[in-house]
Amino acid sequence: MEPWRLVLVKSTEFQRLQKRLAERVRSYRKLRNISQEDLADLAEIDRTYVSQSERAVGNPSLGVMVKVAGALDVHVTDLLQPAT
Amino acid sequence: MEPWRLVLVKSTEFQRLQKRLAERVRSYRKLRNISQEDLADLAEIDRTYVSQSERAVGNPSLGVMVKVAGALDVHVTDLLQPAT
Repeated sequence: MEPWRLVLVKSTEFQRLQKRLAERVRSYRKLRNISQEDLADLAEIDRTYVSQSERAVGNPSLGVMVKVAGALDVHVTDLLQPAT
Repeated sequence: MEPWRLVLVKSTEFQRLQKRLAERVRSYRKLRNISQEDLADLAEIDRTYVSQSERAVGNPSLGVMVKVAGALDVHVTDLLQPAT
């Protein structure tokens, strides 16, 4: 029987950005004191997209990210760039 | 018969970003002296996506933008942020 092995999985740049986007959307949304549903309404997108964004799942389109950023009153790059 | 009217169409933030992405991808690609096909191969995406990106059409996903940025050796935000 094969022993347990420790496997280091390098997180890809995509996964890092998915995670960063999730944290940023959540934190800007909390800062504005609005619910996921409010954000979806403001951004004129389906609530599913907001929920997916904050769970770092899915592959959001530029269009969705621009709408979310606009609703949060930030630039789309604020959702993606490394912390300064 | 109705006279011609001048209609000012406000370009949306999405269209601005689509256009900026197009210009950046094209200019970084030219700088690296590679063809659209080379870029598609490097990014491991279909050539159609590169062509669409450079024509400012379509709605690219975060995944595609990250792959293109990686192949051009820049950060995804370098493709989207306003010129400094």
